[in-house]
Amino acid sequence: MRRFAAEAVGTALLVATVVGSGIMGERLSGGNDALALLGNTIATGAILVVLVLGLGPVSGAHFNPAVTLVMAQRREFPWGDAAPYVAAQVAGGIAGTVLAHAMFDLPLLQLGVKARWGVSQWLAEAVAAFGLIGTILTAARARPDALPWAVGLYITAGYWFTASTSFANPAVTIARALTDSFSGIDPAHVPPFAAAQVAGALAGAATFGWILGPRQQSR
Amino acid sequence: MRRFAAEAVGTALLVATVVGSGIMGERLSGGNDALALLGNTIATGAILVVLVLGLGPVSGAHFNPAVTLVMAQRREFPWGDAAPYVAAQVAGGIAGTVLAHAMFDLPLLQLGVKARWGVSQWLAEAVAAFGLIGTILTAARARPDALPWAVGLYITAGYWFTASTSFANPAVTIARALTDSFSGIDPAHVPPFAAAQVAGALAGAATFGWILGPRQQSR
Amino acid sequence: MRRFAAEAVGTALLVATVVGSGIMGERLSGGNDALALLGNTIATGAILVVLVLGLGPVSGAHFNPAVTLVMAQRREFPWGDAAPYVAAQVAGGIAGTVLAHAMFDLPLLQLGVKARWGVSQWLAEAVAAFGLIGTILTAARARPDALPWAVGLYITAGYWFTASTSFANPAVTIARALTDSFSGIDPAHVPPFAAAQVAGALAGAATFGWILGPRQQSR
Amino acid sequence: MRRFAAEAVGTALLVATVVGSGIMGERLSGGNDALALLGNTIATGAILVVLVLGLGPVSGAHFNPAVTLVMAQRREFPWGDAAPYVAAQVAGGIAGTVLAHAMFDLPLLQLGVKARWGVSQWLAEAVAAFGLIGTILTAARARPDALPWAVGLYITAGYWFTASTSFANPAVTIARALTDSFSGIDPAHVPPFAAAQVAGALAGAATFGWILGPRQQSR
Repeated sequence: MRRFAAEAVGTALLVATVVGSGIMGERLSGGNDALALLGNTIATGAILVVLVLGLGPVSGAHFNPAVTLVMAQRREFPWGDAAPYVAAQVAGGIAGTVLAHAMFDLPLLQLGVKARWGVSQWLAEAVAAFGLIGTILTAARARPDALPWAVGLYITAGYWFTASTSFANPAVTIARALTDSFSGIDPAHVPPFAAAQVAGALAGAATFGWILGPRQQSR
Repeated sequence: MRRFAAEAVGTALLVATVVGSGIMGERLSGGNDALALLGNTIATGAILVVLVLGLGPVSGAHFNPAVTLVMAQRREFPWGDAAPYVAAQVAGGIAGTVLAHAMFDLPLLQLGVKARWGVSQWLAEAVAAFGLIGTILTAARARPDALPWAVGLYITAGYWFTASTSFANPAVTIARALTDSFSGIDPAHVPPFAAAQVAGALAGAATFGWILGPRQQSR
Repeated sequence: MRRFAAEAVGTALLVATVVGSGIMGERLSGGNDALALLGNTIATGAILVVLVLGLGPVSGAHFNPAVTLVMAQRREFPWGDAAPYVAAQVAGGIAGTVLAHAMFDLPLLQLGVKARWGVSQWLAEAVAAFGLIGTILTAARARPDALPWAVGLYITAGYWFTASTSFANPAVTIARALTDSFSGIDPAHVPPFAAAQVAGALAGAATFGWILGPRQQSR
Repeated sequence: MRRFAAEAVGTALLVATVVGSGIMGERLSGGNDALALLGNTIATGAILVVLVLGLGPVSGAHFNPAVTLVMAQRREFPWGDAAPYVAAQVAGGIAGTVLAHAMFDLPLLQLGVKARWGVSQWLAEAVAAFGLIGTILTAARARPDALPWAVGLYITAGYWFTASTSFANPAVTIARALTDSFSGIDPAHVPPFAAAQVAGALAGAATFGWILGPRQQSR
């Protein structure tokens, strides 16, 4: 039960940061989107380190259905817990959007309007999830103590190097469909984003699983 | 005695950084508040890592009455030391504001004029303190060696994701009421900020205390 | 085989980040090149930490022919593997450029047009590679666990302190000759860049090899 | 001998970064000094981590006569080595300025013209050095492995919270008197800067030495 709560609270704080820092960036940047994205990036990367570091031992700190799927597929996570994990992530994510709106004195319930559509955007999301899974699998093997930093730094890079700014997370994508602000997305554009994320995550698991090779039995 | 001095000096350097980097940002940014906040953020996050890292073994590096309160409530800190800790934090914080003014050649004693009022601002402060306590409690359990980074990174995120820029600290709030610059606050607006911070901190202690569960006796 | 794949995939993600974040920065910054370079810097520094951390145990995480050359010269890497490593790095780098173009909906194949020529530019590249090798050799001796951070932070500094923005890598330079965007370079200007990088790397190996002195046999 | 070379090379790379990134920031920022300082800050903070990390085991990585003085006064460094250390730092620093000018195709020898004068500036430098020594002494006691990060993060903060942007180093100040660019200083203004730095460093050594208390004999 505490594990599910950790996933919900963690995803809520993650989404509150993504959405909230996007609103702050948009308000303060005077229309310069690079500055808005910079604030958005720094806040998101920072909170990811904090959340993965602190909640990792409790729930694994997935905060992301694509990660839960890959972990279950790798038999490092029980399939039976996957559905409640994803439910907690989606519910937490939506709560995070509402919380950000409340803090910034905006209507609590909104619908995104930002168009994020097209093959290049879907490719960007697949690449984003591919790299995220690669980051997690390689860091977990090489340096588990550094995993929180690896995840935060990867998303820091992803906000700038993928054309879609690396949503890379179906639960967060759903939550971002409920805000009409900097980080929003048109709800109708969510399904191909989520599909691309799952496809990229599975490709990442296959690719980096092969590159890493079988885990040593002992050390 | 050295512990109280560490709290006072640490809070002074923290506030000197918050106020000083706000003045620097305001002076250099040509009216672009996102740039000013970016400088303010980077400086504050960085000094927090340094201060918590270096003074943690001396005093616990609270620098924050809300943290002292939670630690005392959790019986990880003696109640009898709480009042002198808070006094040292408030006195140190005020000294930090005066020091920043002296370095930037401004009148040493000022009163803040920036309005920070309203339910959404108070919610933001409660969320900021909720997350700060969550950061401290989870990192202290999961990775005590990484606690300084967790605190610095959390506030880095908080400056952007909370609508109030995460004061999250009653002593720092009082000290910021004494500057009429970027990081200031109208003194009349301090009490609800402090109340929201304490409420958020207690809620964070309850929530994350439950999520973490009882500490293992051995390992 | 997995080692060569790690070099190719790692260099591809590195170049996709360099080129992709350059495009993102250029698009969003409204013509302010400092902002574009800031986004470019943060993304590149962050991904380097992730890639060196995660793939270091697999392939050594060179991603750079100049590094492979120095390691072979120091007899810490077999000469026989140098050619396939360099081939993997160059092929991966080119794939990274194409991937960035695909994500940003640009023509996949381009030629750089940005002039990067002259003695001061070549000096800058020699300094960049000199410092990169110094960073790697000193960190590997002093704190191998911190090497990924040292490399990422060095390039973060290099983007700003060298007049050429620290390509410091012949494979990445070739890959950047294939993009007509922020991070591009005229293909005709590649050879002296690569020559300067190799010269700087060898000078760095000699200088820092001497400063470090012979490795202790035991400890 | 290798120790002196490490001090010279390290200070040269430090100053090349300070001066070079200042020039880069000034060139790209379109007159926005906050952006120029941001690039200057990130580069300087990053290279400090790299240099202290890699060269610490060789020479102690002082790169700063004020640090050498404090270490000698604390009997943690032989007085007999102080003069050659300072000579290496000053010579290396000047070489760093010349190198930055060469990379940016500027006259190699220049004189600073930027006025940095007045009681508030001198106070700022004293505070900067006070905090730098506090950072070093507390981190060296609490977490020697984290010292490189503490130093880099402290200067990151110092660039923004002190009105003088934290030179905090007499050798670097002399070297910055030889550039007429963003980070320069009028040579006539160097002596009170250096005096304030030494005074602040000694005050920091006294204050934090007392706060830390005597070192435990064993652990």
